[in-house]
Amino acid sequence: MPNFINFQTEPASYRHWRVEYDGQIATLYMDVDEDGGLFDGYQLKLNSYDLGVDIELADIVQRMRFEHPQVSAIVMRSGKDNVFCAGANIRMLGGAEHAHKVNFCKFTNETRNTYEAAGDDSGQHYICAIRGSCAGGGYELALACNHIILTDDGSSNVSLPEVPLLAVLPGTGGLTRVTDKRKLRRDRADIFCSTEEGVRGKRALDWHLVDELVTNSRFEEVISQRANEFAALSNQTANATGIILEPLKRDIGEDGSVTYSAIEVAVDRNAGHATIHISGPEEAAPANVEALHAEGAQTWMLRVARELDDAILHLRFNETELGVLIFKSSGDQQEVLTHEKLLLDNEQDWFAKEILLYWKRILKRIDLTSRSLVALVEPGSCFAGTLCEILFAVDRSFMADGEFEGDNRPIATIALSGSNFGHYPMSNDLTRLETRFLGNPENVETAKGSVDTILDAEQANELGLVTYALDDLDWEDDVRVFLEERASYSPDALSAMEANLRFAGPETMETRIFGRLTAWQNWIFQRPNAVGEEGALQRYGSGIRGKYDKRRV
Amino acid sequence: MPNFINFQTEPASYRHWRVEYDGQIATLYMDVDEDGGLFDGYQLKLNSYDLGVDIELADIVQRMRFEHPQVSAIVMRSGKDNVFCAGANIRMLGGAEHAHKVNFCKFTNETRNTYEAAGDDSGQHYICAIRGSCAGGGYELALACNHIILTDDGSSNVSLPEVPLLAVLPGTGGLTRVTDKRKLRRDRADIFCSTEEGVRGKRALDWHLVDELVTNSRFEEVISQRANEFAALSNQTANATGIILEPLKRDIGEDGSVTYSAIEVAVDRNAGHATIHISGPEEAAPANVEALHAEGAQTWMLRVARELDDAILHLRFNETELGVLIFKSSGDQQEVLTHEKLLLDNEQDWFAKEILLYWKRILKRIDLTSRSLVALVEPGSCFAGTLCEILFAVDRSFMADGEFEGDNRPIATIALSGSNFGHYPMSNDLTRLETRFLGNPENVETAKGSVDTILDAEQANELGLVTYALDDLDWEDDVRVFLEERASYSPDALSAMEANLRFAGPETMETRIFGRLTAWQNWIFQRPNAVGEEGALQRYGSGIRGKYDKRRV
Repeated sequence: MPNFINFQTEPASYRHWRVEYDGQIATLYMDVDEDGGLFDGYQLKLNSYDLGVDIELADIVQRMRFEHPQVSAIVMRSGKDNVFCAGANIRMLGGAEHAHKVNFCKFTNETRNTYEAAGDDSGQHYICAIRGSCAGGGYELALACNHIILTDDGSSNVSLPEVPLLAVLPGTGGLTRVTDKRKLRRDRADIFCSTEEGVRGKRALDWHLVDELVTNSRFEEVISQRANEFAALSNQTANATGIILEPLKRDIGEDGSVTYSAIEVAVDRNAGHATIHISGPEEAAPANVEALHAEGAQTWMLRVARELDDAILHLRFNETELGVLIFKSSGDQQEVLTHEKLLLDNEQDWFAKEILLYWKRILKRIDLTSRSLVALVEPGSCFAGTLCEILFAVDRSFMADGEFEGDNRPIATIALSGSNFGHYPMSNDLTRLETRFLGNPENVETAKGSVDTILDAEQANELGLVTYALDDLDWEDDVRVFLEERASYSPDALSAMEANLRFAGPETMETRIFGRLTAWQNWIFQRPNAVGEEGALQRYGSGIRGKYDKRRV
Repeated sequence: MPNFINFQTEPASYRHWRVEYDGQIATLYMDVDEDGGLFDGYQLKLNSYDLGVDIELADIVQRMRFEHPQVSAIVMRSGKDNVFCAGANIRMLGGAEHAHKVNFCKFTNETRNTYEAAGDDSGQHYICAIRGSCAGGGYELALACNHIILTDDGSSNVSLPEVPLLAVLPGTGGLTRVTDKRKLRRDRADIFCSTEEGVRGKRALDWHLVDELVTNSRFEEVISQRANEFAALSNQTANATGIILEPLKRDIGEDGSVTYSAIEVAVDRNAGHATIHISGPEEAAPANVEALHAEGAQTWMLRVARELDDAILHLRFNETELGVLIFKSSGDQQEVLTHEKLLLDNEQDWFAKEILLYWKRILKRIDLTSRSLVALVEPGSCFAGTLCEILFAVDRSFMADGEFEGDNRPIATIALSGSNFGHYPMSNDLTRLETRFLGNPENVETAKGSVDTILDAEQANELGLVTYALDDLDWEDDVRVFLEERASYSPDALSAMEANLRFAGPETMETRIFGRLTAWQNWIFQRPNAVGEEGALQRYGSGIRGKYDKRRV
């Protein structure tokens, strides 16, 4: 795989962002290298961004949590003089394949959601300080912050010019945050989202598009003041010492397989699926919090999380033809629970808590992956606690029932833990078990009663925790038929069906962004008015407007 | 307009449905005439349906409310021997334009929502009695009923085979009702929605896909029993006498204009917009409920509702290039309020109540119309009470401020009434004013304080009820610029943006169906895997499966 997209980076490699740390305050300078695009064919002018820029931002946000726990206020600002950020790069979008555009938007959305939640989750508050033009994806960077400061200099402005200028939608939650977070009056939202030049000054403040308007001369002073105020909101980790996120060990084979320390990804291109195998811990759990800190990024719960996260992103972007992801595990179930228990027992420790919060994000990333997801609970597997969430994230799960002929591994069992009952809400703000049992909430309570019990296939099936419990006579055929069937269906129809079926129950800003906005955006990215030869994306910069088919749909 | 789609029909013209009335119970027989398709090129085999079939159903549901108020249980069943309904006709879908497919799904959804709500709103409960195959859109007909009976004969089944068979989604709320109404466990929903042959017998009952399973021999007996039970739930109108919905007076001009008694639709094809002009009542309001009943379908509040409903549907289907709908009104504001007041004061009367409920449905239909909506409150206009809801349904409203030179009509004013504060919830279950003021709920209370006050433009603007208050110097230019600008944008981007901005706040089954499911369906209806030459819709019936691009998006 010579040309694959690599989601691993580190501060020394950044080309587009600069971070300055000063006690509890960090400052992020967006200073995009025009010539540092991930692909050929475009320049990243005016602080516009592509996936490469966002991979760095995601890395910064992630390291902020683990390497810089003492930080409690982060200022996001531009490293350029006259522009904050011009949004996603249009030529990149114009040239990218449909699937890349959609996956790009999903990843940037996940990064926005991550730092938006960092205030509540980890006491790391993001402040956006805007001077110059802040357009499209640039304003969406701001919308996900906890506080937006805009200079009142007669020209600095915020805008979502996608509809009038590009015939597409703001793709990173802009519409949803305008209506549901900033709560713009609907006619004002209509004006704002269809006005190329955006809104500046007092109107931006009156319409609540920004939280604060300051003169140019007071810009630095107010930034510093707000940073200190937000920093003061959470100072319990002011003296914490971070751990280092060392580079992952990863080996990508010629055949597409990916080998990490605890995760192996096997690929079957003919069958169109990838198998993600999770190995349980090989070493005993750290004895206490001090030992956990000493293990740092190598502790099993964090190591496997980082590897799983990377594997999912790799498959999403670099293996688009593998339509089914199969999750398997092997190892000592009890050890999994012991490793997890140390974290659950020590949530007051910032590091233990951050590992659990990271799992929350990864599990959401799995929910939002537009592939058919299946778990195979085979003899010798170690699905327990956190790993059981994968069973509730997948579209279907198969569990081996009893002994399998010629297989001397322990029979398949699973075990729930406290983590399955609140630590890992989905985007809809319900746990996966609450979502699963929407029609029978009493089943959640029954399942809770089984915490720490080792459940065999019959018991797991009885509790409704798996889709199928199959003995060795049926196992192979049933799994094969399912995989063949799935591979024979239209990938589009499956993506859309799964997106509708996975998120029953309440809706939140997140489910709206991923379910509603993404679907509309997907549609628009197919329409000639946007992507056709005479469409707005292709004609952008030519001085000629897109030519539109006027029929309304 | 020789070949336009006509939404007006009457029982004597039905080709596809038969209705039998027996006291409080009505029975709807779906018995589709194979040769009665709305367009050429397909036969409506196996009780499959096209828009024409659904127009008749919508007419039945509407007349049930007004002409047969004594009915409180409606049995929906098949008039054919071995099939309940095969769903939307595939050849029709394969041959229809994209815009028609999308509008068709929207209309059928509106009809499903209407009879689903009839139980709670009007005490008319729908019971679905299934014998034979009930597939796709057929099962979606059932899902919107209040009670589903299935025969346990070893072959009768329910299914949503769209994904495996046709590479599209169930388009009439199937996925949403499976997860959020029937609350299927997610992995079972996955199985159900990807299994061509569907589910029958005990499993259908166990999974709560149906409410009741009966043997063939008891089928008639149980239907009759349930019908009587549901009928007994609401017998307050058992002795009511309906009013007759006489045919609308409607004249469609060569130029595309449409003239009704109180509504005029003017068309400007070059500019790409239609103007819907509502005339206030010319006669005094009925003095009391008896007079209201005597006026029947001719009473202004009902007459204008029926005409407006027809005009909106006509524009949606027959005038897809008119991207902007402009609402205007003229007449005596006080008379509008007087007509409305009789209904509000007499909600215990079934007829008064039904007129208000009908307005609720029409206003939702306006919200869901994928055109840019604008209201012009000009001198002499009569926006008041119910008609003010239009000002809150549109994307932007312009109100004339003060006297206009050379215009001797009364200055523009508006007036709220009690109906603006609860009678007309949107699909998100909030009123339009609650949605408008999501960020400032206190503004709803302030607006309530102005009920029955005549508000000039300055006051209306101060209360946040209109977008712009413009004097005669600015009016013409500002309105013109808005209309020109809107006409210059991509219709797709506008449809998608408006669908995202109009429904802030909570989500419901309805907003999910129209916002989330419809967007995914729109996308799929564009993808070669469904509609391409080798796609599933084109190949349907050929014996060859669709050929799919395997890349996941």
